[in-house]
Amino acid sequence: MKKIAKRSNCPISSLLDIVGDKWSLLIIRDIMLAGKKNYNEFLRSDEKIATNILADRLSLLESAAILRKAENTTGKVRYNYRLTQRGIDLLPVLIEMILWSDKYLLISPQAKQFARQLRKRKEYVITEIAKGLKKPAV
Amino acid sequence: MKKIAKRSNCPISSLLDIVGDKWSLLIIRDIMLAGKKNYNEFLRSDEKIATNILADRLSLLESAAILRKAENTTGKVRYNYRLTQRGIDLLPVLIEMILWSDKYLLISPQAKQFARQLRKRKEYVITEIAKGLKKPAV
Repeated sequence: MKKIAKRSNCPISSLLDIVGDKWSLLIIRDIMLAGKKNYNEFLRSDEKIATNILADRLSLLESAAILRKAENTTGKVRYNYRLTQRGIDLLPVLIEMILWSDKYLLISPQAKQFARQLRKRKEYVITEIAKGLKKPAV
Repeated sequence: MKKIAKRSNCPISSLLDIVGDKWSLLIIRDIMLAGKKNYNEFLRSDEKIATNILADRLSLLESAAILRKAENTTGKVRYNYRLTQRGIDLLPVLIEMILWSDKYLLISPQAKQFARQLRKRKEYVITEIAKGLKKPAV
């Protein structure tokens, strides 16, 4: 695991040192909530991540053991990325971000619908998504 | 409110466009969990934020209506900062970050102690902190 510079022993600061740039969390989101798994799919997300930033963040997240990559034997892309348990456990952080944005910002209709489900049964939704992320790849 | 560039209508991306740099969330943390309220106090945090970054982020967070500043009539510093309701509602995001770091990273003993309390009664702790943040300044 690559050593990541730590600014302090504060838990919030330490988490941000690992995933706290505007792009890393979006890659995690892509895998976690949009079912994406490879470089080309990440590139196609609405936020239009630049190829060099994407490559850098993937390598950083892999070093931090948030993602792991596996050779892809079937398709055209070389690697598929999956979240580790450590990565999957970031789900509640992203869920709380969605709930906040649903309250205060203009978001897509699909996201609003998802937030409605979350407000009804957050724990259940989190458990189900986590289960899906743990399933072996097909 | 200053217009902030939005990369997409995704709720996670939209939240990150507002508070998603490594320093903004630490300023929010300082007010929320460390009882800090002014420029000099933020400067003294362990992560050693640079003065120009601090000034920039405070102004950004004020534009985004996460913080509001008030003239300080008593002490030496000119302004005190408080979280708006919108800012206070970010508390669950920070709480989930703390819980994740407690599980996976080396954090300070005080933070570990706080995480233990959170695991026992998260909702109660969140409600109590939020109440404290809403109290009028003395």
